[in-house]
Amino acid sequence: MRRLLLKICYDGTNYCGWQVQPNGISVQQKICEALFSLLGEKTDVTGCSRTDSGVHANEFYCHFTTGNQSIDNRGFIGALNVRLPDDISVIDCIEVNDNFHARYDALGKRYIYKLYYSPVIDPFKDKYSLRVPKRLNIERISEFCKNVIGTHDFEAFSAAGKSVTDTVRTVYDCSFSADGDDYTFTIEGNGFLYNMVRILVGTALAVSDGKLNPDDFSKIIQSKNRALAGKTVPPHGLYLNKVFYERDEENFG
Amino acid sequence: MRRLLLKICYDGTNYCGWQVQPNGISVQQKICEALFSLLGEKTDVTGCSRTDSGVHANEFYCHFTTGNQSIDNRGFIGALNVRLPDDISVIDCIEVNDNFHARYDALGKRYIYKLYYSPVIDPFKDKYSLRVPKRLNIERISEFCKNVIGTHDFEAFSAAGKSVTDTVRTVYDCSFSADGDDYTFTIEGNGFLYNMVRILVGTALAVSDGKLNPDDFSKIIQSKNRALAGKTVPPHGLYLNKVFYERDEENFG
Repeated sequence: MRRLLLKICYDGTNYCGWQVQPNGISVQQKICEALFSLLGEKTDVTGCSRTDSGVHANEFYCHFTTGNQSIDNRGFIGALNVRLPDDISVIDCIEVNDNFHARYDALGKRYIYKLYYSPVIDPFKDKYSLRVPKRLNIERISEFCKNVIGTHDFEAFSAAGKSVTDTVRTVYDCSFSADGDDYTFTIEGNGFLYNMVRILVGTALAVSDGKLNPDDFSKIIQSKNRALAGKTVPPHGLYLNKVFYERDEENFG
Repeated sequence: MRRLLLKICYDGTNYCGWQVQPNGISVQQKICEALFSLLGEKTDVTGCSRTDSGVHANEFYCHFTTGNQSIDNRGFIGALNVRLPDDISVIDCIEVNDNFHARYDALGKRYIYKLYYSPVIDPFKDKYSLRVPKRLNIERISEFCKNVIGTHDFEAFSAAGKSVTDTVRTVYDCSFSADGDDYTFTIEGNGFLYNMVRILVGTALAVSDGKLNPDDFSKIIQSKNRALAGKTVPPHGLYLNKVFYERDEENFG
């Protein structure tokens, strides 16, 4: 038996997220089907994260175990890709140790959220970036982002109705950049609560508008009150951008 | 009666092109429907060009005449956009003289064709750019592009079965650029034959591969033989990028 780690990317527009769901087609299901068609084995595929419906991934990892010992790596990637729709691609396939786990061995993740300014919808950007009808205040948002860095109890920045016991997370980096009319919110951390990035971006927009101040962050954190934070922005601007693993011989064979 | 010129853009993926066709939904039809819903008049909308099925436009112009005198320009654009699908946007609306014609008054056009290098499909680029599985030879293609500039009889670079009497066109500019793994072929001219840009790009790819030489261009031109030029590349990388009009008071009211 060999454990293999797939590095994939996907346009999440047409999926209910990574995880298999009773309603809707998931990325996980598509990967499982492609593996079954190729290997003739029913394999469990474990992802590094759950992404929500409509969220994209520039980089996503999942592992599975196979009894097939004769896999030629390059040919395997190509054969999987012809079995996958054009909105999901396998980028790489890495042999890992038997106890490697795509989710538990992830040291951290980077998410990005894309926005663009335009008075009208840009048909080429609108599926992959959130349109804002006014230019954003980069200075105010950047000040807000600096406050987000650190270890905080992010309960106020998580969707209601989800019972997670530990809502403390560490954000290693958080920044906001502009390239012409395109904006990118970037955040790296050891873990993220449900909807946390999308609520942080919604709060950043409220800071840009002047509805909130950059320093209101600590007040909101202390309140643990979801209602004090900004709106949850839609999923189509959100990308799981990078997953950090310890790349040593212990993990990667 | 007033003549108005709309500046629009569209993602052509889901359309049979600009022009109304017996089968398939056209951009023209969507614009006519939106105008009818808003103005309550049946209006003829005349485009600056026919774009093929699946071809995009960063900039496209069309004119129409309306008896409605009370149009407030800003509100009109917004009201049209809410009546249009997200893959078509009205960017501007300009009042023009009664004899202005979106097609005949166009002095020239710029098309771009996007390509990207990647060993696997990139789900975020693949609908809007042609994937090439090997890196391109920019020097060879640039040399080819220089040869394309000028006035030539482009019969060999037009799709068979189209009977146009005059196949002479003037190309003002033609260039090829790379930005990381993204490539852009740019061409400006006074007019383009059916499939001319797509055949020129296909020929550029053959030049990159070494199947043709940059200087074979004049041989192909002289032959007037479609079979000597390269393949017709698919429509999804092609964009009508700019339309040149004489922007003086004679045309624009």
